[in-house]
Amino acid sequence: MDYSSSLHLTSIKSLCANWIADDIPSHFDIGGLVVGSRPAVAHLYMKQSGVLAGLPFFQETFNSLSGCVVTWCNQQTPTPNPDTSKYVTQPAVEGEKYTYDGRPILLAVVKGPVNQILRGERTALCALSRCSGVATDSRLMVDFARSINWNGSVAGTRKTTPGFRVVEKYGLMVGGADTHWLDLSHMVMLKDNHIWACNGDITECVRRACSGCGFSSKIEVECRSVSEALTACEAGADVVMLDNMKGEQAREAARVVKGKYKGVVVEVSGGITMETMGEYTGDDVDVVSCGKLTQEYQCLDFSLKIQQE
Amino acid sequence: MDYSSSLHLTSIKSLCANWIADDIPSHFDIGGLVVGSRPAVAHLYMKQSGVLAGLPFFQETFNSLSGCVVTWCNQQTPTPNPDTSKYVTQPAVEGEKYTYDGRPILLAVVKGPVNQILRGERTALCALSRCSGVATDSRLMVDFARSINWNGSVAGTRKTTPGFRVVEKYGLMVGGADTHWLDLSHMVMLKDNHIWACNGDITECVRRACSGCGFSSKIEVECRSVSEALTACEAGADVVMLDNMKGEQAREAARVVKGKYKGVVVEVSGGITMETMGEYTGDDVDVVSCGKLTQEYQCLDFSLKIQQE
Amino acid sequence: MDYSSSLHLTSIKSLCANWIADDIPSHFDIGGLVVGSRPAVAHLYMKQSGVLAGLPFFQETFNSLSGCVVTWCNQQTPTPNPDTSKYVTQPAVEGEKYTYDGRPILLAVVKGPVNQILRGERTALCALSRCSGVATDSRLMVDFARSINWNGSVAGTRKTTPGFRVVEKYGLMVGGADTHWLDLSHMVMLKDNHIWACNGDITECVRRACSGCGFSSKIEVECRSVSEALTACEAGADVVMLDNMKGEQAREAARVVKGKYKGVVVEVSGGITMETMGEYTGDDVDVVSCGKLTQEYQCLDFSLKIQQE
Amino acid sequence: MDYSSSLHLTSIKSLCANWIADDIPSHFDIGGLVVGSRPAVAHLYMKQSGVLAGLPFFQETFNSLSGCVVTWCNQQTPTPNPDTSKYVTQPAVEGEKYTYDGRPILLAVVKGPVNQILRGERTALCALSRCSGVATDSRLMVDFARSINWNGSVAGTRKTTPGFRVVEKYGLMVGGADTHWLDLSHMVMLKDNHIWACNGDITECVRRACSGCGFSSKIEVECRSVSEALTACEAGADVVMLDNMKGEQAREAARVVKGKYKGVVVEVSGGITMETMGEYTGDDVDVVSCGKLTQEYQCLDFSLKIQQE
Amino acid sequence: MDYSSSLHLTSIKSLCANWIADDIPSHFDIGGLVVGSRPAVAHLYMKQSGVLAGLPFFQETFNSLSGCVVTWCNQQTPTPNPDTSKYVTQPAVEGEKYTYDGRPILLAVVKGPVNQILRGERTALCALSRCSGVATDSRLMVDFARSINWNGSVAGTRKTTPGFRVVEKYGLMVGGADTHWLDLSHMVMLKDNHIWACNGDITECVRRACSGCGFSSKIEVECRSVSEALTACEAGADVVMLDNMKGEQAREAARVVKGKYKGVVVEVSGGITMETMGEYTGDDVDVVSCGKLTQEYQCLDFSLKIQQE
Amino acid sequence: MDYSSSLHLTSIKSLCANWIADDIPSHFDIGGLVVGSRPAVAHLYMKQSGVLAGLPFFQETFNSLSGCVVTWCNQQTPTPNPDTSKYVTQPAVEGEKYTYDGRPILLAVVKGPVNQILRGERTALCALSRCSGVATDSRLMVDFARSINWNGSVAGTRKTTPGFRVVEKYGLMVGGADTHWLDLSHMVMLKDNHIWACNGDITECVRRACSGCGFSSKIEVECRSVSEALTACEAGADVVMLDNMKGEQAREAARVVKGKYKGVVVEVSGGITMETMGEYTGDDVDVVSCGKLTQEYQCLDFSLKIQQE
Repeated sequence: MDYSSSLHLTSIKSLCANWIADDIPSHFDIGGLVVGSRPAVAHLYMKQSGVLAGLPFFQETFNSLSGCVVTWCNQQTPTPNPDTSKYVTQPAVEGEKYTYDGRPILLAVVKGPVNQILRGERTALCALSRCSGVATDSRLMVDFARSINWNGSVAGTRKTTPGFRVVEKYGLMVGGADTHWLDLSHMVMLKDNHIWACNGDITECVRRACSGCGFSSKIEVECRSVSEALTACEAGADVVMLDNMKGEQAREAARVVKGKYKGVVVEVSGGITMETMGEYTGDDVDVVSCGKLTQEYQCLDFSLKIQQE
Repeated sequence: MDYSSSLHLTSIKSLCANWIADDIPSHFDIGGLVVGSRPAVAHLYMKQSGVLAGLPFFQETFNSLSGCVVTWCNQQTPTPNPDTSKYVTQPAVEGEKYTYDGRPILLAVVKGPVNQILRGERTALCALSRCSGVATDSRLMVDFARSINWNGSVAGTRKTTPGFRVVEKYGLMVGGADTHWLDLSHMVMLKDNHIWACNGDITECVRRACSGCGFSSKIEVECRSVSEALTACEAGADVVMLDNMKGEQAREAARVVKGKYKGVVVEVSGGITMETMGEYTGDDVDVVSCGKLTQEYQCLDFSLKIQQE
Repeated sequence: MDYSSSLHLTSIKSLCANWIADDIPSHFDIGGLVVGSRPAVAHLYMKQSGVLAGLPFFQETFNSLSGCVVTWCNQQTPTPNPDTSKYVTQPAVEGEKYTYDGRPILLAVVKGPVNQILRGERTALCALSRCSGVATDSRLMVDFARSINWNGSVAGTRKTTPGFRVVEKYGLMVGGADTHWLDLSHMVMLKDNHIWACNGDITECVRRACSGCGFSSKIEVECRSVSEALTACEAGADVVMLDNMKGEQAREAARVVKGKYKGVVVEVSGGITMETMGEYTGDDVDVVSCGKLTQEYQCLDFSLKIQQE
Repeated sequence: MDYSSSLHLTSIKSLCANWIADDIPSHFDIGGLVVGSRPAVAHLYMKQSGVLAGLPFFQETFNSLSGCVVTWCNQQTPTPNPDTSKYVTQPAVEGEKYTYDGRPILLAVVKGPVNQILRGERTALCALSRCSGVATDSRLMVDFARSINWNGSVAGTRKTTPGFRVVEKYGLMVGGADTHWLDLSHMVMLKDNHIWACNGDITECVRRACSGCGFSSKIEVECRSVSEALTACEAGADVVMLDNMKGEQAREAARVVKGKYKGVVVEVSGGITMETMGEYTGDDVDVVSCGKLTQEYQCLDFSLKIQQE
Repeated sequence: MDYSSSLHLTSIKSLCANWIADDIPSHFDIGGLVVGSRPAVAHLYMKQSGVLAGLPFFQETFNSLSGCVVTWCNQQTPTPNPDTSKYVTQPAVEGEKYTYDGRPILLAVVKGPVNQILRGERTALCALSRCSGVATDSRLMVDFARSINWNGSVAGTRKTTPGFRVVEKYGLMVGGADTHWLDLSHMVMLKDNHIWACNGDITECVRRACSGCGFSSKIEVECRSVSEALTACEAGADVVMLDNMKGEQAREAARVVKGKYKGVVVEVSGGITMETMGEYTGDDVDVVSCGKLTQEYQCLDFSLKIQQE
Repeated sequence: MDYSSSLHLTSIKSLCANWIADDIPSHFDIGGLVVGSRPAVAHLYMKQSGVLAGLPFFQETFNSLSGCVVTWCNQQTPTPNPDTSKYVTQPAVEGEKYTYDGRPILLAVVKGPVNQILRGERTALCALSRCSGVATDSRLMVDFARSINWNGSVAGTRKTTPGFRVVEKYGLMVGGADTHWLDLSHMVMLKDNHIWACNGDITECVRRACSGCGFSSKIEVECRSVSEALTACEAGADVVMLDNMKGEQAREAARVVKGKYKGVVVEVSGGITMETMGEYTGDDVDVVSCGKLTQEYQCLDFSLKIQQE
């Protein structure tokens, strides 16, 4: 799948340009003066096994630096002799899992004025490294779910880094996880705080939500018991989230809900990890969501190296 | 120390407002319609042991939502009876280490229209959680350094989350680590790529840097050998970074450099962790820098709960 | 319902400030120099019958002009003697229908420096006038639907004024119409162009959409025949839009679709007006959408008048 | 006339980019994922008679989406056989009046990645449709004026859609109407509120305006009587607006003013429509302004259709 | 005159906030950490004779720093004993001429967190110093004109500092000079380059300008001879600029123009200084414009000093 | 040296685009309508002797106007016959000193749509003229220093035009002066106000600064006496500024400081001009800073002329 076609590249480029501006805040970069602006070539190497994700962020970071061009390796890119070379070349494919054998994996070539390349280096690597990290952790979890014969969705949450959400949500998608709701303007999510704010009246909460969002949005309700879940479904919720239940309890609650409301999506959540996932993933559970997928995720190791003539 | 007085709050508020706007991108939040805008009170609880950091980000997120007021607990805030209460109250002190005993620690009260509070909740918690995570990991590493009788600086790097740099750099400072260079416009850092771009001529690189930045900036040079480090010092570098050397080798290189150039700062870097730090921290090493402090750091657990009347 | 609690006021204020900046583009307003900055009082009058909508836009326009305060009339606001007065006072209630009898209806009082009030006047009135216009036209259409005993939703479309969408979508909501999808990031809508771009393969289109948006978004498919609609439902569409069918034909198609896919929402669209609506609104039609509600709508007549001492 | 050369295209492009960003607010567009990014071709059709206006807005919307190119039809564009074809081709000329005979009029071809084209579609059409609507209504009114042998200017007002002003003002110009003042920083306009704010002293108002704006700006005064108009002229007004007078009364007032102040421009205003215009347009009236030209104007019907191979 | 009421303070505040952000580009100001955020008081002193101008820029700079309040001295502000004091207090009046006798003139008191005051100090002083400089030079030139009994306008030009235009144009106004056209969207100015671009056809140029700007804008034409000036007037120009003529020649040209076109404004320009002004200022010359008023102007000396308890 | 390689061109282009937007604030430029958008050629002439600086600002201003291309003259650009030509051609070299002999010096050719060229003209010239002015004044002062056999640095200060700082700081660099600290986030500068704010305790001030900025920033302290300077050095200052001392006194203070703290940089400051510089420039003084270099500097005379066919 051509994941990057889901992104509005114009605003991604502007986001990346803001990252760079944040990194050269006074317009001056004396390191750039030192190296000057002669044309140079740099190699992007992957140096750790994992799922590659975030090509559009790496790309648009350099697109925002005038004169820089990124060429991703593809089937036609010549591979240096694997015996003697210091690196191997592989096609760069978003969502592909790469295995690192100690030799850097060449994925792209960046050409441009040397000062411009060095300005983009750190930011482009940091974005790629984080996005690939999210995708790698997501893939691991999805693969694990399949390995225990559960076909539901592994989903992220809204526990994303402020301002960096799009990279992490995109990493989830490329890794095979569900992005879950993107933001407060997307799905309507009624959490414990919302219910409390309405004196605990779930029915009234869902009714107001329907009236506000009309037929275009889904409505999800966070529930602490089967009874709350049934109330939510009856009131018109499209999704119920069973929060902080133990595995057995959650599976049973899901069974009751699906028995009465076949069309409703059942999500379980609350500190679930790969270790405990198996306790939750019954047939009636559609979604398991994990906050860890977008926080404390690993950062894959990439580097960008100027090639000496 | 009043850490937050180092921050330009006007631009922090604007940053926080952008985070919120990114989270309600189409101006609409139907969850807000559900709860309405009546006045409400919410409690900020800490639910994990660690160093508290990021108060200005939590504060300015709510300052950007009109009608919201954050009141931090202080010595005068009454503590509920510890026996019977579901939480304990403690003064909120930036940089303080808190111990979680299973009871949530009340640190602040947020008042405002209930829809506004719920809009800020997730973003404010995510920022606080990440900033405190960086500070906690920093403090651990600094405390470890002191425990092995090394008095140098533990420093972060530029491997920060794009656009989120200020939170992570601030977290380093509050945690007791050195922020290292803030950005490309700050110190002049000449890395391997810079040197290669100048045909490996360290002396010429440093000369050009001096000429561009004048007397106001420091100049640091990444070196792969003692000989490179000596060349850099001779040319006028203020700091040399010994990169990817083994511990023994690094300590010896530092000794040679300091022997000839007493005023120069010596930094060692390259995958150093708490496990390996002891091998690097000799008397001639001034700084140990660690990329992990601003990536893959833990996120402390906080929550914000609407209080029911 | 407290409609304005659905809006992120921080970004609305910023939108309104941009409108004003667009109207005083060079920072200078010599009219403001003429009147000076002494305190003044102005009255907001409604001068045409219709549904009042857009209070937050009027309010935030003046909030963006320092020193201006808007006070909306309420039950307590004293009404001048109706016999002798030149105007009548009524509480300002978002979504309320007002009847104009020739006497201006006082809805709010604006206080502030006179130059600031006059700077906001035209912009605030234009926003209020347009938002109320959309709401009035929406209410008319909804009332008509109810009068012919149809209980489905009257919905707007995405044919909104570029950059002014939030005002028009909000006007729909206040008027009682469904806002339909807010933007391309909200619901997934697959129109004729999307289907053509995928070689007419509706099933594949819906499959890809599911895979990208996960469980949080609804998916709607524009269909030109019953058979397309059934294909879309089978593939997993949540909503089908029967486009440009004649009334009878649309009602029959809706009947077939709902017969097989009870949970699917059926929308009819395509140049439907109050005159023709009756032909479309059968029991199996859930939504009628009308482009005219956000274009060529009337603009209600309001004025703001400085009160002479 | 090359109308678009009056526009600062850099800021127009930025305006159009903001419109698109407002329509894909969270960076994600799953419809784009569905269709992917392969190259496609789309046709812009006009489907209603009227004056074409707004080419720069359509153009810059696609210029803001990378990879999209708009080619306007010209004399050389081959026309398909009118007998058999489903559309006719005509050169796209800003300000030209087109007649729709039931066959779509092909005006431009858009090439680019199919997801990018579909992202720009609705916004580009909405802007073109509205701009052409304003131009069409303007042309009708100007043509009517000429048909009754009046050679003065038909002008718009400041009753424009907030933030969308430039499109509507430009539509007026292309339609042959006078744009009137562009904003508060342009001409100095002293309305009833300004005069009241200065205790009704027109002379003092004009004096202060002269002193502030110097020789570069025109000064217009809204007058409710001949005597006010004469006072304004005496004080140095360049333009007087006779507001809300009946036709006969306005023509007579204009005659008196022009008799004494030949160089002054006389504008009449206040709910004037095509039906009543004839009552106002005497020899001494230079300008008739109409608020309806920029509100409640029709929106011409255009469509953009992906061409299937 | 209340000059500041001509400025849109909302956008001025935003401009000033941008200045400060440009001066603390990475959000960090370690100087602020050093002093902390305790409340402090600072005095604004004028230390050079001249015309005070730019109060709104000084004020809004501090308004953009939360917690800072500027109080301008007025008639009621107590004056310290002039014999013993180190400074004198005077009311701060925009446009007033002050005489410095060696003792600093206290004009305002700034209160706020000490780190916030010190952040605004330099920027606020630089703006005030430059604005007052422009006003002082303008006043000198206007006073000189009056001293040689010429009552025309001394005007600035568009030779302003990019991005800083509003401060310099405002300084002209406060100093008593004419701001001339504010920008390209204001008056229509046809210079030599414009005429050349139209094959030297002044008549056609003016005709097109009239057709584009309608009745609301003035049109000025730069002319190199009497004959060009007469052509411009005949075509409908409101202002003619006689550029780079010698004094005698310019005065004669003005006489001819005014003889035929009484209503036309005549401007002379081209390196005119106080030394040569007398040669140009005849009865038929309305405006003398001087580029030097907004470039190379003096910067008045102000300082802001923290008061020690 | 390739000075422009020190600048982040992406943000410079955005800065220049903002300048232009500020100059065409309502999107309309009727002068552009007059000349249309046909291709044209313009010449950039220098018309005054001085140091050329600011090429990137001139360049990026035109880069922000679509269709415009700047070609700088180089060794290969053919020179017209000097006897008969109205101008001479010279290679455009940043930092080069040019001598004007009465014939305009052609430095660049700008090609593009004629309305676009004219839109950029004034802004591009104003930036170039100011930047070259700063560089010219800087070069004069540096040359003077060398002529009196002093090899220290002549430095600018932070007394720059708000928002225009980067142009002036860059002009200093190109002219051969030291830019001094770029902003509050760069070096830590502790001035009199900071010291007062800490009860005059220099040692404590420097200690806190060290703790906040770590090893990456330099710390400078403004001192009013030798004793203060020695205290500052002892506490760890990298630079001391001897402010407002007389020449002799300053040289002596510098001697004492350098005697004890060889590595410390000594700056003298306070109204020093070329006339008085000789009194300050002893062997122990490293830096002389002058506020005048970035205020009241001359503006070199350039012009841009459309070439007639």
